[in-house]
Formats: sequence, structure tokens, C-alpha cells
Amino acid sequence: MPRRSDEATELRAIPITGIAEVLPGDSVADAIMAALRRQRLKLVPGDILVVKHKIVSKAEAQMVVLDRARPSPAARRWAARYKLDARVVQLALEQARRVVRRKRGVIITETSHGLVCANSGVDVSNVDGGRCAALLPADPDRAARQIHRAIKKKLGVAAPVLITDSFGRPWREGLCEAAIGVAGMKPFRDFRQRRDSHGYRLRASLEAVADELACMAGLVCGKLSRSPACIIRGFYYQAGPGSARQLIRPKSRDLFR
Amino acid sequence: MPRRSDEATELRAIPITGIAEVLPGDSVADAIMAALRRQRLKLVPGDILVVKHKIVSKAEAQMVVLDRARPSPAARRWAARYKLDARVVQLALEQARRVVRRKRGVIITETSHGLVCANSGVDVSNVDGGRCAALLPADPDRAARQIHRAIKKKLGVAAPVLITDSFGRPWREGLCEAAIGVAGMKPFRDFRQRRDSHGYRLRASLEAVADELACMAGLVCGKLSRSPACIIRGFYYQAGPGSARQLIRPKSRDLFR
Repeated sequence: MPRRSDEATELRAIPITGIAEVLPGDSVADAIMAALRRQRLKLVPGDILVVKHKIVSKAEAQMVVLDRARPSPAARRWAARYKLDARVVQLALEQARRVVRRKRGVIITETSHGLVCANSGVDVSNVDGGRCAALLPADPDRAARQIHRAIKKKLGVAAPVLITDSFGRPWREGLCEAAIGVAGMKPFRDFRQRRDSHGYRLRASLEAVADELACMAGLVCGKLSRSPACIIRGFYYQAGPGSARQLIRPKSRDLFR
Repeated sequence: MPRRSDEATELRAIPITGIAEVLPGDSVADAIMAALRRQRLKLVPGDILVVKHKIVSKAEAQMVVLDRARPSPAARRWAARYKLDARVVQLALEQARRVVRRKRGVIITETSHGLVCANSGVDVSNVDGGRCAALLPADPDRAARQIHRAIKKKLGVAAPVLITDSFGRPWREGLCEAAIGVAGMKPFRDFRQRRDSHGYRLRASLEAVADELACMAGLVCGKLSRSPACIIRGFYYQAGPGSARQLIRPKSRDLFR
């Protein structure tokens, strides 16, 4: 990467279209590389690959047939009270390590990955006509590393890989994408030891670029476009191992648990 | 905008470089248009203009000479305890409508705009060598509308305008850009009445695209690059009045106040 981080360069998000339906056991990396070939799109050094978690969950068979969920009496009561699907409530509670808030029909949980999100990330919106629910990948960092390695091996480009999900936020309306799996790059841009254009030392300036890249990808990988992955070109990232766990604030430093 | 929202198109963020130092009373729109001319960059229909709030604050003279701040005894005690600048603590408290959390040296407040953020958005990082602090613009939506109108009038392009700031988030480390001012577009992409590619009706799917666009802009408008604004090209937005206030979750629906 010959560019300097403080040089303003144009940034592009190129959607990867025509990724075939991924089935349990399939390689997500292979599906993406096949789509790149069909699209005649070449991965070049510096590119970042961003993948929506849903196709990773499908490949990992993290799918639950909703009719097989067995809602507990508590899940049924909660669902009835707020007109929710008791099966989805049950799955959300099963996937939770801890319930952070349960109020007015919204369940915010901490997942086994440490992610804090609504319904433990259980999602019925886009899976086989709603009969199934998609759970989060078992280990999104590991999934990102697998895709990263497979692509490096076959295409010779060590492109960082981000796996994303849509999260709500306290205080703000609407969902934004966030990085739940990271491989091949540091998730932050760290300005804490640097000086700005006035020579002033920048203080609390740790930028969560992995989440910003996830948001950028979210704009082209829409829920309606059949484009669950994209390439981001032109961003000067810091190469390195990196993990989405670094993006999770430790309990000891969190004011909102 | 002839494109359909569910068609995957390439997205670009083009940094606007060489914006002259903005002084109190200056027109931000004029400064941006002058930079566009120098850069030989033409605004085209469909473009979105994203501007970091700092230059808007400067133009509005929302700057405070730090030595003129008069920290209260409470602000002094808090600052001494956590090795903070008592003057900045004082300004943060003065700018707050309400303190949401004050713990371990972090002050999360609700500003007069309704924004929930650290230190009421008071920022000393990039202003005249640290001697001044920048407050948030008085009314970022109004500032966005002014830029939007001035550009429409002079260039004939009704480009939406977003004004952004960097916010921390509960549960996650690092800052991400967020839209604090919006003009000329709806801040959301609303999937609630639509069906996905499997024909399944999408439920809680309101995407905060204004915040995702802010994040994308944050990646090119770095703290160190002299590029406080950029053009985002290729995003199918919904034109309309729009306001950043729509992005603020009403108290009645918020679980974390």
C-alpha cells in the first residue's frame, strides 16, 4: 500500500453481483470468487472484501426451521404481549449469554460472541421465505479468516475481510451495519499519538474504521439488491491480524450494561 | 435519479481537497464551491455533499477561547479526579440539556439538539492549535439547508447535504461518524413495506442511510487529511426535506436514557 493514511484519495465500493445461493457446507470464498470471475472483476492489492453475515450463516448451516423452535411459556407470554413470533423470541433468548434490556417488545442481548444487539442477531427477514431463521455465524472472526486465507491462496491478494450485520443503536433510529468479523486488517485508525494539521496532539481519537467500512458496504449491499458482498477500493487500512472482538468494549469500560 | 434503489451500483466518495480555512462569517457553501472549481470537480445530479461539522462551527463562530471558560468547582473536581481539562468539562456541561451518564471520566450528555454524545460534542482536537474549543453548530439542519440552497442556486444541482460529527457508541470501541444535519434527502431507507428477494415481507428494516453515508465520508475525510468535505456519488437516495432530528430516537421509544 504505497498511499499515506492522511492523503485524501477517492474511495469506491463495488458491489459483487450474482453470487450463487449458498448452501450449507458451501465455501463462501469459492462462491465470491466465482461471482468475481463472472463479473470480470479483479481483486487488486489494497482491496477490502466486505461480506454480509447471512451468506456465512447459510454456509455454516446456522439456520433454524422456525416450526422446530419450542417456545417456553415465558417466551410465549412476552410474544403475545407485543404481537411477536414466540419462536423467534425463543431463539433470541437461547442465543443470548445475557439479556441487557427487555422492554416494550424489544429484547437487547449479549451474544456468545460478546455482541450487544437486538434479538441476539436472529434474523428471519431474508431466509427462504421466512420459514427459517438465520443465527449469527458461530465465530465470525474465524469465518473472515477462512475467506481471507482462501482468497489469498487462490488469487494471491491478501485482501482484508469484514463480515457484517445490521445493528440498532441506543438514542438513534434506524439500523447501521457493523463489523462482526475481521481478518487481515486492524479494525481501528488510531490518531492518539498523532498531531493534526495544526500540530495539536489528537486525544480520544480512535476511529472504528471497520464499522465505517461496514456502513459503506451496507449502502451498496442493500437488503433488496442481490449483492451480499462488495469490494472497497482506495482505503488505506493497517494490515495485521485484527479481530472484531477488539471492537467490543470491555465490560469494565462500558457505561451502558 | 433514474436508478432503482435495489439495483447494485458502484458507490464513490470523492474528497474535496483544498478548502480554504473558514473564518467566522464565511459562507461554507462558497468555500466548498471554490474548492470544487480549483479541483475541477463538477457536482452532478445524484451527488450527495457530506461536510464535517467543524468548518460549519467555525463559520458560525461557535468557538470558545479555552482560557475564557470559567470552570465551576464541580467541573474542577471532576477534571482533577480524571486528569481532564476543567475548561472543557465546564463547556461540555454548559452545552448539555441533560447529563445521561457521568462515570469514570466520561461525560455523556444530551445536547440542545437532542443528540446524545460525549462532552456535548465540544471538541478541542483540531482548532487553532488547541487554544480554542469548537462547539456544535447552533442548528446543523439549518446549516445543511443553507448549504443545500446556496449550491442549488449557484450550480443548479439540488445535492443533499449532510453535516457530520464523530460519536462514540455504547458497547463498541472507537468513534464513527454520524449525521447531525440533513437537507434535501430522507435520512432513512425504509424497507418496512417491501418484500425481499424471497417475497418475504421485511419487518424492522429501517436503515439509517444518512449515518452510513456519514461513516463512508469519515473514511475519506480523515482527521489528518485536509479534506473536511466529500462528494458521495452513486447512492440512490430518496429526495425530500429530511432532518437529522428524525435520526434521534424519541425518549418514549428509547431503552437507554
